[in-house]
Amino acid sequence: MKDAYSNPNVTETGARRDTTAFLPTTYRATSPAMEQIMNNPRDVLDHGFVRVVDYMGEDAAIVQAARVSYGMGTKGVRKDAALIDYLMRKRHTTPFEMCEVKLHVKLPIFVARQWIRHRMANVNEASARYSILDGEFYIPELDDLATQSSSNGQGRGDVLNDADAIEAQDLIFSSSNEAYNLYRLLLNIDESGNPNDAGACLSRELARMVLPTNIYTQFYWKIDLHNLFHFLSLRADPHAQLEIRRYADVICEIVKAWVPAAYNAFEQHRLHSVTFSKSGMSALKRMMAGEDMDAKKAGVSDREWGEITAALAA
Amino acid sequence: MKDAYSNPNVTETGARRDTTAFLPTTYRATSPAMEQIMNNPRDVLDHGFVRVVDYMGEDAAIVQAARVSYGMGTKGVRKDAALIDYLMRKRHTTPFEMCEVKLHVKLPIFVARQWIRHRMANVNEASARYSILDGEFYIPELDDLATQSSSNGQGRGDVLNDADAIEAQDLIFSSSNEAYNLYRLLLNIDESGNPNDAGACLSRELARMVLPTNIYTQFYWKIDLHNLFHFLSLRADPHAQLEIRRYADVICEIVKAWVPAAYNAFEQHRLHSVTFSKSGMSALKRMMAGEDMDAKKAGVSDREWGEITAALAA
Amino acid sequence: MKDAYSNPNVTETGARRDTTAFLPTTYRATSPAMEQIMNNPRDVLDHGFVRVVDYMGEDAAIVQAARVSYGMGTKGVRKDAALIDYLMRKRHTTPFEMCEVKLHVKLPIFVARQWIRHRMANVNEASARYSILDGEFYIPELDDLATQSSSNGQGRGDVLNDADAIEAQDLIFSSSNEAYNLYRLLLNIDESGNPNDAGACLSRELARMVLPTNIYTQFYWKIDLHNLFHFLSLRADPHAQLEIRRYADVICEIVKAWVPAAYNAFEQHRLHSVTFSKSGMSALKRMMAGEDMDAKKAGVSDREWGEITAALAA
Amino acid sequence: MKDAYSNPNVTETGARRDTTAFLPTTYRATSPAMEQIMNNPRDVLDHGFVRVVDYMGEDAAIVQAARVSYGMGTKGVRKDAALIDYLMRKRHTTPFEMCEVKLHVKLPIFVARQWIRHRMANVNEASARYSILDGEFYIPELDDLATQSSSNGQGRGDVLNDADAIEAQDLIFSSSNEAYNLYRLLLNIDESGNPNDAGACLSRELARMVLPTNIYTQFYWKIDLHNLFHFLSLRADPHAQLEIRRYADVICEIVKAWVPAAYNAFEQHRLHSVTFSKSGMSALKRMMAGEDMDAKKAGVSDREWGEITAALAA
Repeated sequence: MKDAYSNPNVTETGARRDTTAFLPTTYRATSPAMEQIMNNPRDVLDHGFVRVVDYMGEDAAIVQAARVSYGMGTKGVRKDAALIDYLMRKRHTTPFEMCEVKLHVKLPIFVARQWIRHRMANVNEASARYSILDGEFYIPELDDLATQSSSNGQGRGDVLNDADAIEAQDLIFSSSNEAYNLYRLLLNIDESGNPNDAGACLSRELARMVLPTNIYTQFYWKIDLHNLFHFLSLRADPHAQLEIRRYADVICEIVKAWVPAAYNAFEQHRLHSVTFSKSGMSALKRMMAGEDMDAKKAGVSDREWGEITAALAA
Repeated sequence: MKDAYSNPNVTETGARRDTTAFLPTTYRATSPAMEQIMNNPRDVLDHGFVRVVDYMGEDAAIVQAARVSYGMGTKGVRKDAALIDYLMRKRHTTPFEMCEVKLHVKLPIFVARQWIRHRMANVNEASARYSILDGEFYIPELDDLATQSSSNGQGRGDVLNDADAIEAQDLIFSSSNEAYNLYRLLLNIDESGNPNDAGACLSRELARMVLPTNIYTQFYWKIDLHNLFHFLSLRADPHAQLEIRRYADVICEIVKAWVPAAYNAFEQHRLHSVTFSKSGMSALKRMMAGEDMDAKKAGVSDREWGEITAALAA
Repeated sequence: MKDAYSNPNVTETGARRDTTAFLPTTYRATSPAMEQIMNNPRDVLDHGFVRVVDYMGEDAAIVQAARVSYGMGTKGVRKDAALIDYLMRKRHTTPFEMCEVKLHVKLPIFVARQWIRHRMANVNEASARYSILDGEFYIPELDDLATQSSSNGQGRGDVLNDADAIEAQDLIFSSSNEAYNLYRLLLNIDESGNPNDAGACLSRELARMVLPTNIYTQFYWKIDLHNLFHFLSLRADPHAQLEIRRYADVICEIVKAWVPAAYNAFEQHRLHSVTFSKSGMSALKRMMAGEDMDAKKAGVSDREWGEITAALAA
Repeated sequence: MKDAYSNPNVTETGARRDTTAFLPTTYRATSPAMEQIMNNPRDVLDHGFVRVVDYMGEDAAIVQAARVSYGMGTKGVRKDAALIDYLMRKRHTTPFEMCEVKLHVKLPIFVARQWIRHRMANVNEASARYSILDGEFYIPELDDLATQSSSNGQGRGDVLNDADAIEAQDLIFSSSNEAYNLYRLLLNIDESGNPNDAGACLSRELARMVLPTNIYTQFYWKIDLHNLFHFLSLRADPHAQLEIRRYADVICEIVKAWVPAAYNAFEQHRLHSVTFSKSGMSALKRMMAGEDMDAKKAGVSDREWGEITAALAA
């Protein structure tokens, strides 16, 4: 399913045209680095992509909004990047809401189900009630096929050995194809997606239910920068499922190009920050005073204690 | 997967105990009819259900909130039901937000995907990263297996003939079972869900991707009455997919028991109301003055005209 | 308090520069009419304004998002404006969420309090904890000073007679000035806003509490087109307070320039549409069949009946 | 303006009746400590209050929702309080959204303006378009009348000396009364709020604009526990304005009674936790290794450095 929108600045395959001859000018705040990457899809997984469709604002828009709050009293006192760092550190989140980005994302349904839990965003997803889905399925690379983690209820542990991985990959591949063949059979369409001459077709909204959740879907997704940072803090995290993390990593690069000062502040104060609980802080101070501490003395769970010591050892 | 929560007033199968001997009293607004149906799951589709877990407020809570806005000036002037009717008619929506309900819903993934698009709600869904899903799949009844609608891009048309329906149902059933067998093979578990002695298991977050979207999931879903009415206006509508409509119909009954005056106003002014566009109103007035009208004269699309004439003929 | 943000394309007074010599080009969707009006403040009331700071998308962005949902199946079948009309009529709201606009608004606090009730928006308001407010107050024109409506609990009725209006205006003007003088006294600042040499100043967050709600504040306000239409349907309505309606009317003009097809559909199906309740429709059909109807026969309140007959007479 | 809602369990002054004779029983989760404090207004400031009107869920509802996500896999493995602590620490926020509380709050308008910025809540506020406001104004205690902070752009510093405080209090008191007299004059009502025999009255929606923002208003406010914790983390903070903090402190006590385990986790991981930025963590580890550090070496702002050293010294 191709993007039905015709953009004069983009070729039919979605690539950016080389010429800027016919580009319109604008009075709007513009991010040169974002213009460079707009419209070009960035590959993720085997058939997926992330593509910047539109954006509003850049670092200066954050500063501009903050200064409406502060008024002339602080005008020129702090430099922009320092102000952005301050806003992020103190969780003054509303100025970051003043930037907005619209992405076109192609992704497996099981990833889309995690993605869509972020409610503060606007979404238009391809509908399998209207359209026939393409037969594209996410088949993990051998190195990504891992066992259940023994320590983490929801994570994956060691990579499967070669034979097991190849077998698992084969099984996922063949069952995906079988499901798609059944889908076409129920829809009564040929390999090109055209209706067969005879025989009844099941409605699309029913036939699609036999498709597994590794089939690809796509959506337009629009979100403000504050909520995008929240998304990234959860989805670019090692506890997120590897597949959605691949998307989050690509979006991190996009955001870094778009709003470099805000992204830097995000890395400092969200992505790579460490929070100590009330008890954790007490324990830390006793450690700094030379005391030997453990979970019990600190009054925290073994799990929290493990994370405190890991953070201090990192 | 059973509900892990132990409620002393509910049996292990989720049914309400007959005795009220140990029930706590409460100062909160209480809906006797809602208490009657609480905790009892209502069947939907072949394995699904809707169960009221908790609620806040009833008709009087809507009135109470509205009267804070109006102050004593209108105290006693309108009766409660009339005030609720007025609020619904004039789209004064905030008083309806003062009621809240929490449902436990079991439903196929493809229905959950439509459901979750309603963002103004709170959700906790069973995670297939943590837990192994049960092998329960939605298999449509023969009478629900219909062809693609020829007039509606997203709907279904005539029911399949018997032979086609039986074949489609068989195919959906057998492919669901094959997918579940593969799921268990990848997880390396036996029919009781226990790990086999030997062999590697794929992580749960990966294995689940081979499952089709007619497998059942479940969630807790909490929403305020205003947003619930919006959900119902879209999902109890003939254009909604039949499967989600079955859930919406059950929820309509629940809401009717819970807040009868509000539900009546919802039926009057939302569910069974008809909206005429600016051009539609002009056409209506010309018709009432005796003029013969058509889409062209009315200046509306054929589709809108068809709906206007259908509404007036109904 | 001037906007602290320096835009090379805008003069110090906020007016658009004549030259486009240094304007950046962009790959983004661009609305030529919106570019024409960007940054230029439009006067509202005596000291207020609305100014377009930024925007994302235009009519084509709505179509683009809708077509992701519909897929290639409907590609080219409907023209853009017809599709937008269809989406608005059927309340397919998500494509309209794909457009976004950011406004800079200066307005009295009592209007800001109504405005801010629209929660689905991003706001950065000038803070009177940080900054000293300017002594600008909304003083209604003589023609806008009206009595309490006798029929509508929240509205205004006839305009005051000349003598009463002049007296009321004088009283509002002088009490506003007295309040501002007290504010400066508590802050211990002179007429230019500079601290006096001697004496204590009360903190700004405390001193501001003596200011009446007709003092002007300002904010940056960012909202998507769907939620903006909802705002306009309530605030450009005759039941809205006149002062906020003045702002809504100006925003209507802005939206008309920005997304003409969407605005036209909004006028058709929201702003000037009429909704008949279930009972209202029954009554309408009996009227069309020649029956004389009244509120009692129709089974609706006198108030609803009054609105039905008014709509049919308009 | 009295609460127009008649609750059989509450006296006319809003106090809880002693008898439980006629209290209904309920199948809903019940918090005994919350039942004890329901309906009783708790005084805040000179004329304000916070009153629990309704609630849904308690600690067990959080656990219940979390266990739907985790499924039977973790059933019984963690104790409830430990699970709640874990959820709070890892910012698994959705289970906390499963509890809801409805408060009736009376507060000055300038506090209401800060309060209402929390958008994820439901509000019904008294409307001064419909009703005539009572002449109740917030007059700060002498000890709360402080100068502008010299170090914090938005805070207050030292308390005024006695003479200045008394003068400021007098000025605020007398100007509030004058504004209210003008309000009554414009409305043409006598001291009991009744219309005078002769003379025009200005509409209520216009007359109210002369009232200063220390006049009291009231609203019903409904919010889920996750968003309430967010509110409290910002408004029970020393940087919040003292007046709203007084309300937040009372709500903290209410929440502690209602959901003690969740509140304890909130104190541990939100209210009294300390977050170190990426650079802050590097600096901390170098300090623990015996190195002398300062802002420059740490690569953080002087302000952040000050907060790090303060947190370690506390």
